[in-house]
Amino acid sequence: MRTELSRRLGIEHALFGFTPFPAVAAAISRAGGLGVLGAVRYAAPGDLARDLDWMQEHTDGRPYGLDVVMPARRVEGVTEADVEAMIPAGHRDFVRTTLAEHGVPALPDGEPSGWRVTGWLDDVARTQLDVAFDYPIALLANALGPPPPDVVRRAHARGVLVAALAGSARHAVRHAEAGVDIVVAQGYEAGGHTGEIATMVLTPEVVRAVDPLPVLAAGGIGGGEQAAAALALGAQGVWLGSLWLTTEEAGLTSGALTAKLLAAGSGDTVRSRALTGKPARQLRTAWTDAWDDPAGPGTLPMPLQGLLVAEALTRIQRYEVGPLLGTPVGQIVGRMDTVRSVRAVVDDLTRGFERAVERLNRIAGGAREEDVTS
Amino acid sequence: MRTELSRRLGIEHALFGFTPFPAVAAAISRAGGLGVLGAVRYAAPGDLARDLDWMQEHTDGRPYGLDVVMPARRVEGVTEADVEAMIPAGHRDFVRTTLAEHGVPALPDGEPSGWRVTGWLDDVARTQLDVAFDYPIALLANALGPPPPDVVRRAHARGVLVAALAGSARHAVRHAEAGVDIVVAQGYEAGGHTGEIATMVLTPEVVRAVDPLPVLAAGGIGGGEQAAAALALGAQGVWLGSLWLTTEEAGLTSGALTAKLLAAGSGDTVRSRALTGKPARQLRTAWTDAWDDPAGPGTLPMPLQGLLVAEALTRIQRYEVGPLLGTPVGQIVGRMDTVRSVRAVVDDLTRGFERAVERLNRIAGGAREEDVTS
Repeated sequence: MRTELSRRLGIEHALFGFTPFPAVAAAISRAGGLGVLGAVRYAAPGDLARDLDWMQEHTDGRPYGLDVVMPARRVEGVTEADVEAMIPAGHRDFVRTTLAEHGVPALPDGEPSGWRVTGWLDDVARTQLDVAFDYPIALLANALGPPPPDVVRRAHARGVLVAALAGSARHAVRHAEAGVDIVVAQGYEAGGHTGEIATMVLTPEVVRAVDPLPVLAAGGIGGGEQAAAALALGAQGVWLGSLWLTTEEAGLTSGALTAKLLAAGSGDTVRSRALTGKPARQLRTAWTDAWDDPAGPGTLPMPLQGLLVAEALTRIQRYEVGPLLGTPVGQIVGRMDTVRSVRAVVDDLTRGFERAVERLNRIAGGAREEDVTS
Repeated sequence: MRTELSRRLGIEHALFGFTPFPAVAAAISRAGGLGVLGAVRYAAPGDLARDLDWMQEHTDGRPYGLDVVMPARRVEGVTEADVEAMIPAGHRDFVRTTLAEHGVPALPDGEPSGWRVTGWLDDVARTQLDVAFDYPIALLANALGPPPPDVVRRAHARGVLVAALAGSARHAVRHAEAGVDIVVAQGYEAGGHTGEIATMVLTPEVVRAVDPLPVLAAGGIGGGEQAAAALALGAQGVWLGSLWLTTEEAGLTSGALTAKLLAAGSGDTVRSRALTGKPARQLRTAWTDAWDDPAGPGTLPMPLQGLLVAEALTRIQRYEVGPLLGTPVGQIVGRMDTVRSVRAVVDDLTRGFERAVERLNRIAGGAREEDVTS
C-alpha cells in the first residue's frame, strides 16, 4: 500500500492514524503508518512537550505528525474569559439540569476539568506549535481548514508537510490556495466534524479539484476493502481516526465507553452540534438527544458550545454515566467489535487491502479461471 | 467487470441501470449492462405492456429487468380513494398556496396528471406484475424491501431473479429471509429513498450480513473509480440510477430540468420526505424547502404525501417552474455535467474501472517502477 506520498514521508503503508493518545500514535508509526497525535486536549504546553518526548522515545525513529485545531483567521486579544462571558445563562442552566436528571456527580474539589476545548483558541494552538516545532514532526494537520499563512510558512521552513481537512471540493480548493501540501477529504460518514458529502462522492471530487496535490480519504474506512475503495477513488492514502478508540493502546479497554463502542452499530451515530457547535459525528446518546431536541435551548455556535459543555463532558466520562457517555466516532463503529492491538488493526487492514485488490483483478480479468463470489 | 452474478445473468458488465425511461433501459442492456425499467409511473397496465413490447424490440435479445414499488404486506381492499380521503385539508391548502406563490398554472382541462404514485398501492403493482410476467424479464427488483412471498414464488417459478433494496444490514437480512436472490445496498448518498448509512460503510456490512447472497452497491457511483471502489467493498455489481437522467436517451435534453442537473453540485441535494413521505434524496428546491420548513405543515406519511403532491409535481414539470423543479437524484449529480449517450456513460465507466484497478495494482505492488500520483 505505497503511493508517492507514503514514499515521500518514508512510511511503509499509506495509512495515517489520527488519535488523541500518544501510545496509539506511536504504535501506528511503529506498525508502518503515520501516527498523528491530536493536540487539542493539551491546555498546558508542558503536557504536550512531555508527550512528544515520549513519542520520540517510542517511535523507533519513524515519522509521526501532530494535529491541531486552529482557525485560519486570528481574532486578536480574545481570551477564554471573553468567550465564556458570551454564553447565555439559560444554556448553563440546561447543562446543570440535564446532568442532574442523570445524577452526574460534581468533580472533586480542585480536580481540573481535564479535556478542554481551549486548544481551539488561536493563542493556545500557537503555544502548542511553539512546542511542536522543537520536535521532528513530519506532518502538521489542521482540523479547521488551512492554518494561518505564517504557520504554513513556518512548517515549510522546517520541512514539515501541512495537511488540512475538507468536507467539500470548494473548501479543498481554498486549502490548496493557502499552501497546504495534503488535503484530507473527510466524508459524511466520518467521526468528528463532517459535511454532508459521503466519502464515495467526495474523494474523487476533491482529487480532481486540487490535482496534483495528494488527497487522503477519511470517513468510513475501517478495513482493508474500504482502504482499497478509498485508494481506487484516487486517494494517495487513508486517514483513520475512529478505529483506534477500541485498541489496546488507547487504554479505554476497561471502561464503559469501550463497551458502548463495541456494542454500537453503524446506525448508532449522529451528526450533532452538541459537542462543538459545528456538526460532528459521534455516538448518539441521551446527551446528544437533549441538545438536538427542538424543545431544548439548542446548541451555541463554535467555540461557545465547546466551552459550555467541556466540564460536563469531563464529569460524564469520569463517572461513566452510561446514557450520556459518548465520543466522536464514525459509522465504522459498527465493525469495531473486539479490542485489538494497533499492530493487529494495521496488519488486518493491509492484508484486507491486498485481498480486495486480488478480487478486483479477478473481476477485471473476467474471472475466467474462477468465478468471483467473495 | 465480470462477477458470478453478471455471468449468471449473461451480461457483459456487472452494471445494473435503473431508469423510468424504456429508451434508457434498452440502451443500458445493449451496452452490456442490465437495464431495469421502473414501473411505478405506469398507472394503466396497457401502457406498461406497450413499453415492454418496445423493450423486447430494442434490446437485441439481451436481458433486462423491471423495478416495482410494492409493500411486503398487502392491505386488503384499500383503494386510492380511501387513501385520498385521509389527506388533511390544511395540507391540500399548503400545496395550493405554494403553487400559487410561484405562479404554477393549472393543467389544461382533461389532461391527466401523468406521473402518479398509484403504483405503490398493492393492487396496481400486482396488475403490473401480471403484465410483466408475460415478458422474459431477467430480474424483478422491489424498492420497498422484499416483494410478498407469493410474488417471490411466482418470479422464481419463471426463473426471474428477485432483488430488493436495503438501507441497513438489518433490512438486508430480512430481505434474504424473504427469499430474495440479490440485495441492493443503497447508501445515504444515493438518489431516491435512502437511509443514513453511507455506501462505504453499508456495502461490506450488507455483504457480510447476507453472505453468500450477491450484493449490488448503490449510491455515489457515477464513474469507473467509484465502480472499482464498490466492487472492492465486496459488491458483485453496481446499481446506478441518477447517472442516466442526463443521457441523450432520457429525452430530457431540451428541458430546464436537465439544465438544473448539469449545473448542480454534490451539495445541491437533500434527503427530504417531500416526495413520498419517506426520506428520499433529490435536488434541493424551493419545493423541498417549503415542505422541510418547520414553519410549514410538514409532510404526511407514505403513501399520503405522494398522493398529495402528485398533481402538483406534474404541473411543476409540465410548465418547468424553475425554483420548484426537482427530481430524485444522488450526490453524484455533481459529476453529471454533460449530456452523453448511454453507451458513452457505460464505456467511460468500464474504462475508468480498468484504470482504477491498474492504479491499485501499482499501489499494492509498491509502485516500484513508477510512483503512483494519479
